[in-house]
Amino acid sequence: MRVLVTGAAGMIGRKLVDRLIRDGVLAGRPITALDLHDIVPPAASGGGIAVTAHTGDLSAPGAAAALVAARPDVIFHLAGVVSGEAETDFDLGYRVNLDGTKALFDAVHAAAYMPRVVFTSSIAVFGAPFPDVIPDDFHLTPLTSYGTQKMIGEALLADYSRKGIFDGIGIRLPTICVRPGKANKAASSFFSGIIREPLNGLPAILPVSRSVVHTHASPRSAVGFLIRAAEIDGALVGPRRNLVMPGVAVTVGEQIEALRRIAGERIAGLIEEKPDPAIWAIVQNWPTRFAASRARELGFVAEAGFDEIVRVYIEEELGGRVPS
Amino acid sequence: MRVLVTGAAGMIGRKLVDRLIRDGVLAGRPITALDLHDIVPPAASGGGIAVTAHTGDLSAPGAAAALVAARPDVIFHLAGVVSGEAETDFDLGYRVNLDGTKALFDAVHAAAYMPRVVFTSSIAVFGAPFPDVIPDDFHLTPLTSYGTQKMIGEALLADYSRKGIFDGIGIRLPTICVRPGKANKAASSFFSGIIREPLNGLPAILPVSRSVVHTHASPRSAVGFLIRAAEIDGALVGPRRNLVMPGVAVTVGEQIEALRRIAGERIAGLIEEKPDPAIWAIVQNWPTRFAASRARELGFVAEAGFDEIVRVYIEEELGGRVPS
Repeated sequence: MRVLVTGAAGMIGRKLVDRLIRDGVLAGRPITALDLHDIVPPAASGGGIAVTAHTGDLSAPGAAAALVAARPDVIFHLAGVVSGEAETDFDLGYRVNLDGTKALFDAVHAAAYMPRVVFTSSIAVFGAPFPDVIPDDFHLTPLTSYGTQKMIGEALLADYSRKGIFDGIGIRLPTICVRPGKANKAASSFFSGIIREPLNGLPAILPVSRSVVHTHASPRSAVGFLIRAAEIDGALVGPRRNLVMPGVAVTVGEQIEALRRIAGERIAGLIEEKPDPAIWAIVQNWPTRFAASRARELGFVAEAGFDEIVRVYIEEELGGRVPS
Repeated sequence: MRVLVTGAAGMIGRKLVDRLIRDGVLAGRPITALDLHDIVPPAASGGGIAVTAHTGDLSAPGAAAALVAARPDVIFHLAGVVSGEAETDFDLGYRVNLDGTKALFDAVHAAAYMPRVVFTSSIAVFGAPFPDVIPDDFHLTPLTSYGTQKMIGEALLADYSRKGIFDGIGIRLPTICVRPGKANKAASSFFSGIIREPLNGLPAILPVSRSVVHTHASPRSAVGFLIRAAEIDGALVGPRRNLVMPGVAVTVGEQIEALRRIAGERIAGLIEEKPDPAIWAIVQNWPTRFAASRARELGFVAEAGFDEIVRVYIEEELGGRVPS
């Protein structure tokens, strides 16, 4: 089968492509061709799989049509402008996240065939105030442009699936932790930073209280969700095509305890508490726990606890070496 | 002040324009100019108000910019492809209801000023299964392309309002009853038909059980909702800009009893029960009752009972003459 990945140069995109090449199969069928698309050139080597790299703006005229011309059986649509950038550059966010997504969906419509389309949405489709545990049927009142654009992508995905244009599954990802690489300016950056920096021997700042509760899944789980979404029987899912993914709900204090158990006192001691009212003002409006009942029933699996999330980072990014 | 009405040639649009011309004021300020837009030429005479008619496709390049060039203080955005047509003509529905709405919102953004934008949404943003009474925070899972397009319009309205691009209010209209004019092919047509046809001395078919519960508001109430939405203080509404409008929840049997009380046995006897399984299959998935708590608190007022809805039709369409 042929597989298309948009956003293939992003963190999750690269890990998904690695896994697809390693597995060599998807939904029980051998992967023969892989099309990778991103705004920057995606890495393109795939062992026995024919890998083609495509670079450009998905919302540009003809770009989406060119990508689906070879009629990929599965389309992973990960491309998007991230939350912070969609908020500061209003037009760019709508152009990429709405127009780009609709262009891709319409290109599938024009190509008149029936692929599985997996769309990465986000818990940003929800807006405060929140109950303690957010149910699957919580209403959609996003409080960011990014969340609004993801909500619109979900609505299109559900309607295009209902009309038989394609067979779509949307997955609302929780915060991905531990993100590899450098800290970024996202307000959520510290959730990964307080684990990643100490494991690399570096100091980390904790800008909020240890009592803050948040839900996490590892990059490996995110890839697992994508694979599951590609393989699941659409009839099992029914008309409600957008699913809240499971994750590990923990306090920041529990995150730090997991780090201490795995890497010891000295490493955990690299975290310095330095409350930042600006970050707290943002974080207090974030959701804490999700029921994710439907996704769990449908076989989407996250880590069992935060220790496992720390170990995934050590395995995938530190070659299994626990620092001391 | 200057007021723009899109969809001005539609049933609600015409009644809104009549009311605006009759009142001569909106939000306490005299209306000096009225721009009316529709795909067919809207009627254009306004007593002391300068009325300009615009005809064309709102989603055509430059059309929305031309409409907002005069910087209307209030924009009533009623234009749209109706439910049945949006379902049968997928591309037309998205072009008018999504692209047209976004073009209008983006034209306001480009004009860089801050009008009140009133958007007519619909209870079609909700999808079955439903609780007995649908709360204001019921989740959005539309089961039609029309409902999806209205949901997207709402999401854009909320985000553009949050970003300070304009000051938007979305109103989710219930079924409008009694619709004047001829029966149409909408599955909901009979809700008006069983009142309208007998009041005009004609036979009417009732295709569902008398026990079916449905929520209605008169065309006059719909216009009242639009005026209230134009006048309300946005700060009172807060970030959740899309409101379920109130209505009268009655059984079909109660509708018929109201007709009998007002127009007598002979008129009510013109209704023939003729169950239609195809219509029943659609109607059983429709919502029945709405809490509409926020809208009621915010001063949106519907009729107190179905008798009043019948009387509005007799006043507005039959010159107050009750047939016998």
